[in-house]
Amino acid sequence: MSRFAEPPDPVFHRLNRSLDFDWRLGPYDVELSRAHAKMLAAQGIIDEQDRDALLAALDQVARDLEDGSFPFADADEDIHMAIERRVTELAGRVGGKLHTARSRNDQVATDMALYVRAHARVAAEAIVELMGALADQAEAHLDWPMPGYTHLQRAQPVYLSHHLLAYLWMLARDRDRFAAVERATAKLPLGAGALAGVNFATDRGVVAAELGFAGVAENSIDAVSNRDFVLDYLAAAATCATHLSRLGAEIVLWSSEEFGFAQVSDAWASGSSIMPQKKNPDAAELLRAKAPRVAGRLVALHGVMHGLPLTYNKDLQEDKEGLFDAVDTVELCLAAATGMVRGLTFDGDRLAAAAADELIAATDVADLLVTHGVPFREAHGVVADLVRRSLQEGKRLSEMDPPEPLGADEYQALLGQQAWLESKVSEGGTSLERVREQLAKARAELGASRTTHGAPDQASLDGERGPSVRA
Amino acid sequence: MSRFAEPPDPVFHRLNRSLDFDWRLGPYDVELSRAHAKMLAAQGIIDEQDRDALLAALDQVARDLEDGSFPFADADEDIHMAIERRVTELAGRVGGKLHTARSRNDQVATDMALYVRAHARVAAEAIVELMGALADQAEAHLDWPMPGYTHLQRAQPVYLSHHLLAYLWMLARDRDRFAAVERATAKLPLGAGALAGVNFATDRGVVAAELGFAGVAENSIDAVSNRDFVLDYLAAAATCATHLSRLGAEIVLWSSEEFGFAQVSDAWASGSSIMPQKKNPDAAELLRAKAPRVAGRLVALHGVMHGLPLTYNKDLQEDKEGLFDAVDTVELCLAAATGMVRGLTFDGDRLAAAAADELIAATDVADLLVTHGVPFREAHGVVADLVRRSLQEGKRLSEMDPPEPLGADEYQALLGQQAWLESKVSEGGTSLERVREQLAKARAELGASRTTHGAPDQASLDGERGPSVRA
Amino acid sequence: MSRFAEPPDPVFHRLNRSLDFDWRLGPYDVELSRAHAKMLAAQGIIDEQDRDALLAALDQVARDLEDGSFPFADADEDIHMAIERRVTELAGRVGGKLHTARSRNDQVATDMALYVRAHARVAAEAIVELMGALADQAEAHLDWPMPGYTHLQRAQPVYLSHHLLAYLWMLARDRDRFAAVERATAKLPLGAGALAGVNFATDRGVVAAELGFAGVAENSIDAVSNRDFVLDYLAAAATCATHLSRLGAEIVLWSSEEFGFAQVSDAWASGSSIMPQKKNPDAAELLRAKAPRVAGRLVALHGVMHGLPLTYNKDLQEDKEGLFDAVDTVELCLAAATGMVRGLTFDGDRLAAAAADELIAATDVADLLVTHGVPFREAHGVVADLVRRSLQEGKRLSEMDPPEPLGADEYQALLGQQAWLESKVSEGGTSLERVREQLAKARAELGASRTTHGAPDQASLDGERGPSVRA
Amino acid sequence: MSRFAEPPDPVFHRLNRSLDFDWRLGPYDVELSRAHAKMLAAQGIIDEQDRDALLAALDQVARDLEDGSFPFADADEDIHMAIERRVTELAGRVGGKLHTARSRNDQVATDMALYVRAHARVAAEAIVELMGALADQAEAHLDWPMPGYTHLQRAQPVYLSHHLLAYLWMLARDRDRFAAVERATAKLPLGAGALAGVNFATDRGVVAAELGFAGVAENSIDAVSNRDFVLDYLAAAATCATHLSRLGAEIVLWSSEEFGFAQVSDAWASGSSIMPQKKNPDAAELLRAKAPRVAGRLVALHGVMHGLPLTYNKDLQEDKEGLFDAVDTVELCLAAATGMVRGLTFDGDRLAAAAADELIAATDVADLLVTHGVPFREAHGVVADLVRRSLQEGKRLSEMDPPEPLGADEYQALLGQQAWLESKVSEGGTSLERVREQLAKARAELGASRTTHGAPDQASLDGERGPSVRA
Repeated sequence: MSRFAEPPDPVFHRLNRSLDFDWRLGPYDVELSRAHAKMLAAQGIIDEQDRDALLAALDQVARDLEDGSFPFADADEDIHMAIERRVTELAGRVGGKLHTARSRNDQVATDMALYVRAHARVAAEAIVELMGALADQAEAHLDWPMPGYTHLQRAQPVYLSHHLLAYLWMLARDRDRFAAVERATAKLPLGAGALAGVNFATDRGVVAAELGFAGVAENSIDAVSNRDFVLDYLAAAATCATHLSRLGAEIVLWSSEEFGFAQVSDAWASGSSIMPQKKNPDAAELLRAKAPRVAGRLVALHGVMHGLPLTYNKDLQEDKEGLFDAVDTVELCLAAATGMVRGLTFDGDRLAAAAADELIAATDVADLLVTHGVPFREAHGVVADLVRRSLQEGKRLSEMDPPEPLGADEYQALLGQQAWLESKVSEGGTSLERVREQLAKARAELGASRTTHGAPDQASLDGERGPSVRA
Repeated sequence: MSRFAEPPDPVFHRLNRSLDFDWRLGPYDVELSRAHAKMLAAQGIIDEQDRDALLAALDQVARDLEDGSFPFADADEDIHMAIERRVTELAGRVGGKLHTARSRNDQVATDMALYVRAHARVAAEAIVELMGALADQAEAHLDWPMPGYTHLQRAQPVYLSHHLLAYLWMLARDRDRFAAVERATAKLPLGAGALAGVNFATDRGVVAAELGFAGVAENSIDAVSNRDFVLDYLAAAATCATHLSRLGAEIVLWSSEEFGFAQVSDAWASGSSIMPQKKNPDAAELLRAKAPRVAGRLVALHGVMHGLPLTYNKDLQEDKEGLFDAVDTVELCLAAATGMVRGLTFDGDRLAAAAADELIAATDVADLLVTHGVPFREAHGVVADLVRRSLQEGKRLSEMDPPEPLGADEYQALLGQQAWLESKVSEGGTSLERVREQLAKARAELGASRTTHGAPDQASLDGERGPSVRA
Repeated sequence: MSRFAEPPDPVFHRLNRSLDFDWRLGPYDVELSRAHAKMLAAQGIIDEQDRDALLAALDQVARDLEDGSFPFADADEDIHMAIERRVTELAGRVGGKLHTARSRNDQVATDMALYVRAHARVAAEAIVELMGALADQAEAHLDWPMPGYTHLQRAQPVYLSHHLLAYLWMLARDRDRFAAVERATAKLPLGAGALAGVNFATDRGVVAAELGFAGVAENSIDAVSNRDFVLDYLAAAATCATHLSRLGAEIVLWSSEEFGFAQVSDAWASGSSIMPQKKNPDAAELLRAKAPRVAGRLVALHGVMHGLPLTYNKDLQEDKEGLFDAVDTVELCLAAATGMVRGLTFDGDRLAAAAADELIAATDVADLLVTHGVPFREAHGVVADLVRRSLQEGKRLSEMDPPEPLGADEYQALLGQQAWLESKVSEGGTSLERVREQLAKARAELGASRTTHGAPDQASLDGERGPSVRA
Repeated sequence: MSRFAEPPDPVFHRLNRSLDFDWRLGPYDVELSRAHAKMLAAQGIIDEQDRDALLAALDQVARDLEDGSFPFADADEDIHMAIERRVTELAGRVGGKLHTARSRNDQVATDMALYVRAHARVAAEAIVELMGALADQAEAHLDWPMPGYTHLQRAQPVYLSHHLLAYLWMLARDRDRFAAVERATAKLPLGAGALAGVNFATDRGVVAAELGFAGVAENSIDAVSNRDFVLDYLAAAATCATHLSRLGAEIVLWSSEEFGFAQVSDAWASGSSIMPQKKNPDAAELLRAKAPRVAGRLVALHGVMHGLPLTYNKDLQEDKEGLFDAVDTVELCLAAATGMVRGLTFDGDRLAAAAADELIAATDVADLLVTHGVPFREAHGVVADLVRRSLQEGKRLSEMDPPEPLGADEYQALLGQQAWLESKVSEGGTSLERVREQLAKARAELGASRTTHGAPDQASLDGERGPSVRA
C-alpha cells in the first residue's frame, strides 16, 4: 500500500513516531472526525449509512480513549493513524472513507487549535482561582502595615493587602492574554487539505460552527503551516510563569528566618533528608524555578519555525512536546500557587516592626518640606544630608533636629507611622481608602471573569487522561 | 546632596549609567513632564508661574533633543536626570519642583509605555505596507501555477498568488498582535511614585488622558514593577521576525540556480569579494537570520524578570537595550522585506514547468477513485502502488494504465495540469475563483488597517533621532 | 518522624515529586551507595556486618531496577528515598545507616555527575560512529564534482567528499566538547553533606577513586550547589544538535526535485496520508527541527541558576528533565543521522551537471589575470564586467572573448571543469590530492577516538531502561 | 566594476552594512593582512616591493584605527572593504593585490577567531582578579561564623571564608572554560578562500604561526562556515555571567535590612531620586540582571546557525553583535564584581548572632545519636520530633531534655556553637583547618593562573578603542 520498498528503520521509527506524546490530541481528533463525517454526509460526499457507521466507531474510540482501554499498536505512527486504523477495525471498509477530503496536515493543525483553545480556557480559569485566593488574603490583611521595598531595601511602608493585590493585577493581565490566545485559534484549518484545498465540495463553515471556530482560515497554505497560536500560548504561559516565579521568590524570601514575614503551611513544605529541623518552602522554590522552562519552550518553538519554507514540514511535529509540557507546568503551578497562597500565614508583629523603621519616612519629610515651598530636588538633598548625619551619629530620625523650615511638632507628628501609610492618597496608592477601592475593583474583575469564560468541554480534557492509564 | 561619602567608582558608573541607550526615551520623558507639570499646577501643587517656567524649559529641551544639540553631561546617569538637570539650568531653582509627586520608578515605566505604544504603531503600519506589497505581487501573478511543497517535496500545484498571500495572513496576525501590544500599554503608571503612591492630591486621570492612556494603573506597586508590555512587544516582534525569516528563507531558496523561481532586484543583492559572477540574496538571508536575535531578546527579558521580588529593582534597567534592538530590527526588517518583495521578479516558465510534474497529480487520481466509491484510504494505496511501478518502469503517470475502475479518458483528462489546480474548489483553496475571493478579503483587511491605526506622534519618533547625531 | 503536623497537599506532592523522571538516576544512586557503604565500613563508621547487609540489599535493588521489577511506592518522593526505603525493607533497621554522613544534596549532585559522565561518553561514541559514516561516504564519492555554494548560490565546484568531510570536522569538535564535559565531572561532590561537610571522619578520596572521579570537590558549599557540568553537557549537546540541523537541512534541500542531488533510502523516508506519490525526508527534517529544543533546554537551565543564592535550593530539581530530554534527543539524533547518512544515495549526473556551470569558474578567470600581473581587485572588476555582459547577451563565458591580457587558449583551457577543481591546491582545499590528505587525517582522528574513550559502564546505562518497563 | 545594474537600495545598505559594529575587528584585520602579505611575498605570489608598500599602508591604517583618525566612508560596507580601500588609497594600485588568494569568507572567520582568542584571555585574566578579591576577603574573614542556607533556610553554620570561597571555585571553572575557548580558536581559517581553497601555492602554516594559531583548518568548507568558537565563547560567558548573577543576588540579599550581613561601599551604591534615605546595591542588582542577556545572545546564535546550509551565508554576519555585546558585558561585570567584592564590609555581630541559632545544630544532635549506634534515619526522626515539640513549647533545643540515649552533658556540650562548625572535619568541609587547606589550594590555583596565561596582545585590544572615538 506504500510506494516504499523497505520498511522504516527502527531508529527512524523511534525518531518519527509522535504517538508517545500526541495521544493527548486523541479526544480532539475524535471531535474533529465526528464533525468532518457529518459534513461529508450533509454534502453528499459519503452517504448517511457510512456516516452512521463512522460515528458509531468514533463513539467507541472516544470511550476507549477516556477509560484508557484504547488498543494502541506498535505500528501506529501517530494518534491520527491510530484512530483511523481503529475506526476501520470497528466499522470495516467504510473506515477508509473518513480521510476523504482531509489530510493529516489540516487535521493536526485543527487538533492543535482545539487543544490550545481548551487549555487556554483552563489556564484562564485557574488564574481566576489564584486571583481569588490573593483577594481573600488581601481582604484578611487589609490594614497590616509592612515595608515596601525597592532594590530589596525598605523604601516606604505599604499595607500587606496592597502588596498582595499587585500580584492580582499581574494575573489579570495573564488572564487577558490567555483570552487572546483563545481568539487566536478562531479560524478553522480543516478543509485546507494537504496544502492546496480539497477536490470536494465541502462546507467548512458548518464544520467550523460545530467545532466552535468563529470562521475558516482564509488561505489553505497558511492554514497547514501556521502555528502562531501555539507561540501565543507559550508566550502567555511564559509571562504567567514569570509572574508566578516572582511570587514564589518572594515567599521564599519571606519564609527566611531573617525576614520571618510569612510561613507556608506544613502541607506545602518539605523537610530535609539530613537536617531534622528544616521546613523548606519547596513549593515556592519550584514556582520560582519553573518559569525558565516555559520560556525555553517558547524560544525553542521560535527556533523550529525559523526559516521554515512553506507549507507543512515535519519540523512542525516539534510543536507538541513543548506545548504539552508548558500546559502541564502552568496548570500545575497555578493550582499549587493557589493552594500555597491560601495556606500562607503572616507574622503581623514582624511585618509591623519592619514597617516602623523610621528611615522609610524620609520621603515624607522631603514632601513636607515641599509643602513649605522648598523645591522637591532641594528637599531631597536636605533630607539625604539629615539621613547621613543620623547614621553617623547613630540616632533615629526622630532624635534629630528637624530640617528648616520645619517645626518640631509637624516633624515629630510626621514620624508616626500610620501617617506615612495614610498619606499615600493618590489613586492606586496605599492609603486604606485607596486599597479598599482597589479591592472592590479586583472583586469586580473576578466576578466578570467567572461569567465571561464558558467552561472548556470537560469531556475533551478528561479524554486526555491517558498518561496515568498508559503508564 | 547625597547621603554618600564616596563618589561612584568609575567602573560602577559605567555599569550603572543608562544614558548611552535611554536617551531614546527623551522625547517621551519631555511629553510626560509637560503633562505632569500641567497637572501639578491644575491641582494647586505648584503655581502657574512655576508651571510656565517648567514648560518653557521643557520646550527648549524638546527642541534640543530633536536637533541633536542637547548638552549631555558626563555625570548624567540617565535621560531623566539629564533632562531634570537641564530644566533646572534653564528655568532656575523652580526646575527642582518638576520631580514633585513622582519618582524615577513611575516615570521610567511611563516613558517605556509611551515608547512601546508608539513603536507598536510603527510596526503595525510597516506590516500593512508589506501586506500591500504582497497583495500587489499576488495580483500581478494571480494565475501563475507553481508547485506547492510539503517537506520541500513537490506536493500539489498552487497559484503563485495563493502562495504569496499565505504570508499576508501571517502578517495580518502580526498586525493584530501589535495592536494588542498597544492596548497592553493602556494603563498609566505615573502617579505610583516610588512604589506606594504619592502624598499629594494628584489627578492621575487628567495625566492619563493627556498622554493618551485609557486609564490609570490600579496598583502602585504593580505599576512600577510591571514590564509585561515590553514582554508583549518582544513576543509580537519575535513572531513577526520569525514570519519574515520564513519569507527570507524561501526567497533564498527560490533564488538558487536549482529552483530559479525568483530573483531579487540588483538593488537588493550583493556581490562577492572574490567571485565576480555572484549575485547573492543578502537581504533575504538577513531576514532569515534576524529572527533568533529577537527571540533571544525576549527570552533574556523573561530571564531578567524571573524571580524578581517586588517592587522596582535595578534589574529592570535591562529591559531597554533588548527592546530598542528589537524595535530597530523589526522596523528595519519590515522595511527591507517590503522593498525586496516589490522588487522580486518571477520566472513563469520555471514555475510552470515545475508545476507540470505529473507526480503531483497523484492525490487527484486517488480522489477520482473516491468518486467511484473507493474508500479514500484504499484509493491512496492503489495510487501509491501506481506511483511505485511508474518509478520502477521509468514512466510518467500518463504512460501508465489507469487503475481500476477508472476509465482511460477520465484518467488522461485528469492528468492535464489546469484541472489539478482548478479542482481545489474548497473555501481557502487554490482554485482561481477562491484565490480571487481571498484577494478581495485581503484588500478589505488592508483597507481596514489603513484607517484604524492613528499615526504615531511623529514628533516623538523624530526626537529619537539621537543616534546619528550623537555618533 | 517528621516535624510537620500535616501531610503534603496532593497538588504539592505532584509538584514536588521527582520520581517520575529521576528514576533514571537509579543505577548511579546504587553505585554511589555501594561505594559509600564500603567507605563507611573502612573508616569504622559502620561495622562490616552492616556493610554486607547494605551491599546485599543494594545488589537486589540494582537487579530490580535493571529488570524493571523495582517496587516503587506512591509515597516515594524521589529515587533516593525510594532506594533507601527499599534497602531498609530488605536489610531491616540497618538500612537506616546508609544515609550516615551524607545528604540528598551531595548525593544527587554525585548521581548527576555520574549520569552526565556516562552519557557524555555515549555521545562521544555515537559521534565517532557518525564521523565514520561520513568518512565512508566521502571515500565512496571521492572525486564526484558538485557545486559548492555560498549564499545558496553556486560559487565554486568542490568534490562531494570534501563537502561531506566538512561535517566530519564539525563532529570532531563536538566529540572534543563532550570529552571536556567528562572532565567537568571529575570532582566528587559526595562528602559535602548538606552543605558544610560532615561530622564523620570519612575518606572522600577512596569514594572518588571507586566511582571514577579524579579528585574531590574542594568546597562543600560549591559541591552541592554546582550544576556547571549539566550546563556544559547542554552546551555541547546544543552545538552538536545545531550541526546535525545543518546536515539535516542540507539533505532536505538535496532531496528536493529541484536539487535532486541525493535521496534518503526508503527506510528513512515517510509517505503522506493524502498524497500517494510523496517520499518525504522526515528524518532529515527532524534532525533540522531538534536543535532549538536542545538550545531551549540550555537557556532554561541558565534561567534556573540565575540569581540563585547558595547553597542547595529546590530549584536545582529543574536540572533533570531538561538534561534527560537533551540526552535522549542527542543520542537518538546521532543514531538517526548515522543510519540516514549510510543510506544516502547520490545522483552523480545531477551533481556533475550542476558543477559544470561555467559561471562558477569566474574566480579562476580573475586569478588567471592575477598571474598576468593584474591586481586581484582589478581582475575581479574585469571579470564582473565580463559576467554582466555575458548575461545580457545570453552567452556562456566560453562564448565570450577573453578579457585582456588573457590569450584565447589559456582562457578556453581554464573553462574546462576539472581544472577549476584541481586548481584549489592550497592545504585544506578541494583538489583531489588535498582531499585524500584530509581523508587520511580524518581516518587518523577516528582511529584515535576509538581508543581514547573507555566504554561507559554499560550496566549503569542498562539500568536506566526504566521507561519502557514502567510504562 | 560590479555585475549589477542598480546601486543598493538605501534600506538594503542599512540592513547589509556591518561596519557599524565590525569596526571592532579592525586591528585583527590589519594583523591578518600583514601576515598574509608577507606570506604572499615569501611564496613569490607578489614581489617584495609590493609587500613593502602593502605593509607600509597597513601600518598607517593600524595607527589611524588606534588613534581614531581612520577615515571611514559611507560606501564602506564592512571593515574589510574599508581597510582594503584605504590601503589602495595609501599604496596605490598595488593595494588591489592584497586580496589575492583570500576571500572575505576566510578573512572574517580568521578575524573572529583572533578576536575571540584575545577576549577569552581578557576574560580569564579578569576572572583571576575576581578570584583574588574573593580569596583576600576569605582570608580576612577566615573564622567568622555565619549560617549556611539551603532553601534560604538556615541549615548549618559555616565560616564566611568558606562561603566566599565557593564562588572562587565556580570562577576557577569559568577560567578553565575560557581557556578551552582559546584552544577552540587554534585552527587557522585563512587560506580556505571563498570555500574551496585557493588557486595559489600559499603556505598556510607560516601564516598560522605568525598569527599564533596552532595549525590550519583541515577543510576549507568547514573553515568558512564554522562559528563554533563563537558559540563556545558565548557558552562560557553565559555560565560565568550566571555565576556572577548568583553572587550579585546574594549581596542584594545580604544588604537588606533584614539580613544585614554585608554592605557595599558607597562607591558601589546608588541613591534614589525620591527617597533620600536609600542606599541601593545597584551594582549587585545589575550583576544579577545581566546573565539572561548573555544567555539570550547564546541562544540567538544557535538560532542563526540552525539549519544553515553550507558554506558561507550572510546569516553569519549575525554572529558579531551578540559576541561583542557578550564580551562587553562579561568584561564589565567581572571588573565591577571585583571592585564591589573588594569594597564589601561584613557585620560580624549580625552574622554570628544568626549562626548561633540553635536549631541549626539539629543535624549534629542526630549525628551524635548515630555515634551511639542509632541508625541515621531513626536518629533523624527522633530529632525531628524533638524540634517539633520545642517549637510547640516555645523552647530552645538546649531547654529540652536530651533524646535517649544521649546524656545531658554531651547534649549540652554539643549545643555550643563552635563545636558545630569545627565538627565538619571532612575534606572540603567548613572546619577551620579544612578551610585553611582550601584557601591554600585556592592561592595555588591563583598562582598557576597568573603564569599560564600569556597576556593578550594589548595593541590589538587598544585598537578596538573605536567606540568612544567614533561617538
